Amino acid sequence: MKRNRTGKVTVLAGGVGAARLLRGLVELVPASSLSVIVNTGDDDVFHGLHVCPDIDTILYTLSGLSDPDRGWGIAGDGFHAMDQLAGYGAETWFRLGDRDLATHLFRTEELRTGKTLSQITAAQARALGVSVRVLPMTDVPVRTVIEAPQGRLSFQEYLVRERGRPAVRAIHYEGVRSARPAPGVLKAIGEAGLVVIAPSNPFVSIGPILAVPGVRSAVRRATAPVVAVSPLIGGRPVKGPADRMMRGLGMKPSALALAELYRDLLDALVIDAADRSAIGPLETTGLRVAAVPTLMSTPARSIAVARHVLGIGASVRAALAS
Amino acid sequence: MKRNRTGKVTVLAGGVGAARLLRGLVELVPASSLSVIVNTGDDDVFHGLHVCPDIDTILYTLSGLSDPDRGWGIAGDGFHAMDQLAGYGAETWFRLGDRDLATHLFRTEELRTGKTLSQITAAQARALGVSVRVLPMTDVPVRTVIEAPQGRLSFQEYLVRERGRPAVRAIHYEGVRSARPAPGVLKAIGEAGLVVIAPSNPFVSIGPILAVPGVRSAVRRATAPVVAVSPLIGGRPVKGPADRMMRGLGMKPSALALAELYRDLLDALVIDAADRSAIGPLETTGLRVAAVPTLMSTPARSIAVARHVLGIGASVRAALAS
Repeated sequence: MKRNRTGKVTVLAGGVGAARLLRGLVELVPASSLSVIVNTGDDDVFHGLHVCPDIDTILYTLSGLSDPDRGWGIAGDGFHAMDQLAGYGAETWFRLGDRDLATHLFRTEELRTGKTLSQITAAQARALGVSVRVLPMTDVPVRTVIEAPQGRLSFQEYLVRERGRPAVRAIHYEGVRSARPAPGVLKAIGEAGLVVIAPSNPFVSIGPILAVPGVRSAVRRATAPVVAVSPLIGGRPVKGPADRMMRGLGMKPSALALAELYRDLLDALVIDAADRSAIGPLETTGLRVAAVPTLMSTPARSIAVARHVLGIGASVRAALAS
Repeated sequence: MKRNRTGKVTVLAGGVGAARLLRGLVELVPASSLSVIVNTGDDDVFHGLHVCPDIDTILYTLSGLSDPDRGWGIAGDGFHAMDQLAGYGAETWFRLGDRDLATHLFRTEELRTGKTLSQITAAQARALGVSVRVLPMTDVPVRTVIEAPQGRLSFQEYLVRERGRPAVRAIHYEGVRSARPAPGVLKAIGEAGLVVIAPSNPFVSIGPILAVPGVRSAVRRATAPVVAVSPLIGGRPVKGPADRMMRGLGMKPSALALAELYRDLLDALVIDAADRSAIGPLETTGLRVAAVPTLMSTPARSIAVARHVLGIGASVRAALAS
C-alpha cells in the first residue's frame, strides 16, 4: 500500500497560475490536507465594494465556478449591473459580473460588521463547497502600489486599467510593515510536509505574501521541502507582466532570476521544458530542478504538473532523510 | 389657441401609485414644468447599499425601465447577484435585480463621497433621460418605523418581509424632526400652479413628506389649488396596506377618512367611481370632488386620470378667480 508521505501541503498563491496548479493538487492530495495562503496585495475597492481578485479566483476555481477562458470571474456570469453603472457614468474598467458582485457585497458587509477577511473567506469557501483551507495572507489591508512614469498606481490600475503597459520603476507593499499573518498562516507553513510556491508573479503575487512580517522566515525555517513552480515558459509568463517587471527592475526574465528571488527559501524548482538550459546553472546553486511542460491549459495538465511538484518534493525529503 | 393655464405642477409622491399618475401627467404637462417630491421614509440599507424604493420606482417609470407588472425594479432584470447572495447565507427577502443593483451601488458610493441624495437623484435622472424634476423630500435620513405586536419594524421589514400582515399600532417617522426639505422642495410647492397629492398611502408615503418640517405648511399656504387622488377603490387600495393601516389606527378606510387626513390642505379630491356615494359628504366639507375610474392599469387610463386632476385643478382656479 502506497502511503501519502507528503502529509499536509501548503501553497503560497496568487491568482490564475496558482488556481491552475491547485486544481491539479486537489486531485492528488486530500482537500483537508491542503492549505492555500493567498495574496491580498492586489485587493481593491470598486463602487465601495471590497474586491479580493486572488481569493476569488482561487475560490471560484476550486468550486468549479470559474470561467476557464477568462481566468477571472464566474463562468457564464452577466454584466448587467456593470452596464447600468456605466450608464450612470461610473468607471467600469474593472469588470464585476452580476453573480460575482454578490461575493464582494457579502464580503464588504461582513467586514463592516467587524468580521475579519479570514473569517469571511472561510465562510465563503464553506458556502461554495470548497474544503481546501483558503487563508488570506493577512487580515490587515496591504496594497501593492506600482511606481510608474505617470506616478503611483494601484495594482489594478496598473494591470487592468493600464493593461500592464507602464514601465515599473518600483513596487511597494503599502501597510505590510504593520501587517500580521492571518490566523493559521504560520501554522500551515510550519506543519506542512511540503510548501509550494505557485507559478504566480514573484513581485505582485508571491512577493506580498513573503513580505508579511514572519512569513518569509517561517518558510525559510520550514522543515518541509519548499518547491516553486516557475511562472515563466521560455522566459515569458503565461499571463501577466512578470517578465516586464523583471526587466523594469533590472533583471533578465528567466528561471535563474526567479530562483535568485527565492534563494533563501527554495529546495527545488519546477521549470518549463522550454527553459531546460537553465537546469545546469540552477543545479550548481544547490537546487533540485525538474524541467517539464508547465502550461496548465487543461485539468489533466494541471494534474501532471502537480504530480511533478509532489514528486520533486518527495525526492528532496528522501535526500534529507538519507 | 388653448394655453396651458396650469403652469407648473408639483406632485407629492410615494411609489407605484404615484408613478402611474405621473406617466399620465407627463403626457399632458411639459416635463420641464413637472416636479415630483418623493417620499424617502421607506429608504433602507440592504447589503450595505442605500436603497430608495420610491425614488427608484419613479425614475424607472419615467424612464420607461420599470417592470409594469411587478411595479418595482427594472423590466427583464435578472437576480443572479441575489441568488448568489442567498448562497452565502445573506437575507434576500428584499429582492434587488442585477441592473437595479447598479442604481444602489452608484447612490451609496456617491453618498460616501459626500454628495447629497438630491444631487445623486438629479444625476441619476439625467443619466436615465428623465427631465421631470425628481426631488427627494429631504436629504436627511428619515425612517418610517411601524409599531407592530412583535415590536418595531422598519417599513420594508413590515411591508416586504412580513408582507404587510402585522397589525399597525403606530407609525413613526424617525429623524423627521431634524430633517429639512431638500433644496427645491419648498420652491416647487410655492411656485406651482397646481399641487397634486398622488394616490399613495397617506401614512407611509405622503405622511413622511408632509411631516418634514415646513412642507405641510407650505402646501397649506400654497396659492395653487391642491388636488389629491384617492388611492382607494371601493375603500380598498389598489396595492399595499393603506386600508389595514387605517383600520389599525382606528379609521374606517374610505375617501372621507382620506379627506380628513388632508383636511387642512385640500381643495379638491379625485375619487374612484366606486366610491361615488362619498361625493355628498365630501362636498359638504367644502371640497370639489370628481368620481372617475382611477385604476391606472394602462398608460391610457393614467392619462385619463391625469386629465381629471388637471381639470378639477382648473375648476378650483376658475372658482377662486371669479
